[in-house]
Amino acid sequence: MIKFFEKDPYAPIQYVYDVEHILHKSKSQFQEIMVIENPHFGRMLILDGVVQITARDEFFYHEMLVHVLLHAHPDPKTVIVIGGGDGGVVREVLKHKSVEKIYFIEIDEEVINISKKYFPEVASGVDDKRVEIKCMDGAEFVKDREGDIDAVIVDSTDIIGFAKSLFTVEFFKSVKDALNNDGMFVSLSESLHFHKDIVIEVQEALKLIFPIVDLYTAPLATYAGNWWTFSAASKKLDLRTMRRKYAIETKYYSDEIHNQAFMPPAMYEKLMRRGLQW
Amino acid sequence: MIKFFEKDPYAPIQYVYDVEHILHKSKSQFQEIMVIENPHFGRMLILDGVVQITARDEFFYHEMLVHVLLHAHPDPKTVIVIGGGDGGVVREVLKHKSVEKIYFIEIDEEVINISKKYFPEVASGVDDKRVEIKCMDGAEFVKDREGDIDAVIVDSTDIIGFAKSLFTVEFFKSVKDALNNDGMFVSLSESLHFHKDIVIEVQEALKLIFPIVDLYTAPLATYAGNWWTFSAASKKLDLRTMRRKYAIETKYYSDEIHNQAFMPPAMYEKLMRRGLQW
Repeated sequence: MIKFFEKDPYAPIQYVYDVEHILHKSKSQFQEIMVIENPHFGRMLILDGVVQITARDEFFYHEMLVHVLLHAHPDPKTVIVIGGGDGGVVREVLKHKSVEKIYFIEIDEEVINISKKYFPEVASGVDDKRVEIKCMDGAEFVKDREGDIDAVIVDSTDIIGFAKSLFTVEFFKSVKDALNNDGMFVSLSESLHFHKDIVIEVQEALKLIFPIVDLYTAPLATYAGNWWTFSAASKKLDLRTMRRKYAIETKYYSDEIHNQAFMPPAMYEKLMRRGLQW
Repeated sequence: MIKFFEKDPYAPIQYVYDVEHILHKSKSQFQEIMVIENPHFGRMLILDGVVQITARDEFFYHEMLVHVLLHAHPDPKTVIVIGGGDGGVVREVLKHKSVEKIYFIEIDEEVINISKKYFPEVASGVDDKRVEIKCMDGAEFVKDREGDIDAVIVDSTDIIGFAKSLFTVEFFKSVKDALNNDGMFVSLSESLHFHKDIVIEVQEALKLIFPIVDLYTAPLATYAGNWWTFSAASKKLDLRTMRRKYAIETKYYSDEIHNQAFMPPAMYEKLMRRGLQW
């Protein structure tokens, strides 16, 4: 059987996946896009040699990126989703009945098209009438908003290459300006096993801009390091309190997981003092 | 650079590690034993092609296997450690001042000797005067004990081959008979990402014998599936309550982690009903 060797930019382990079929391979303006079929994980979306989603476990990541924030927020109506061209984040945001408008900003249109074709269940919401797709740099889009957004959710590739613009202090400043008073922000921030320094850097950068910054984790089978972090920030409201009843259908996220996912306070302090020894 | 391809018995991913040096390779009566040096993880102990410990991240597993149980127990004095020839579990048990005696039962003497040579920091406690080493099948050893043990801790290889005897209902019955009234048991039980059915089977088997059975998890970088489970059982006392003050030196385990590590009740119910969809 053909093998796919994942060439993750940071990972000190290489991951090898069996390939039953290569369903798609192309080069867009931004990256190489590949879709393969693996016997265990099903279809896998691979960008520049790095696994983005698999049909089997994508929900862990998508649910955790979206629902923690949207349950902490009292009434999210207008949401910006940056990246996540596969549509998984948009699908999860649409589960919240309060949401009236999603600006879906994906730099690479080809990722959306390929996901609609090969991951119809993940991309199921992208044609919803509440969704406005804009194929452009998310950092550019956010610059022009002025305090009318409830939540900004970043689902980017790893923090290298063109995704870097989504992890700068300038970008976080634009996000803050785009948000209204109850506004909240969340982004992936890599793995506590493999990229602890990056996690700290993202937290530190957010703290320069936002009064409230927090960190939660989820277990992921197919992202290097697996112990995946999400960095969240808010203009006023803490992120651990659930302000909305948990009443949506999910496979992993729940009110219990919401409470358990946040890093415990003493451990968080130790992390930020660079005191965790691994 | 030479590469080591992990041929995990269950994992639907293959893991590839760079090998700077092969420090040791031998075949004991029971298994192939290898020690390699990897640029990120440092020294790695590999048994029959499966990574057992790495110098960099072994403490996640050893701390979580030992300290949850020994903090739930009111006063652990006599402990049986089965497997864990590298000595990591013994090192952690010895941190508890109450402990007077450890029966350290490792079937493969060569693993102990090789660990003392290549992982002196992990094996640091095996020559302590409180430790009695017996190179024999742990299931056989436990059969002859009669209600005088405070805790039994199983640190085996994956649940195949000769380790299978440590995951049978008969073994769990022997463990229960070996324990005194406050007695507690814990064992690894594989990954929630990759081996969910095995996790359920271990829990179900324990429930046939013990009135109290529980499940907690930890993130591990180098075990397949990474979202690792520990199955704990007790004759009388629940395992979530910390009955002893957390006052030992650890890198990952803490009172906060003790409380957060247990699977939330509704999720646990769903798991045992085979209702978790992955």
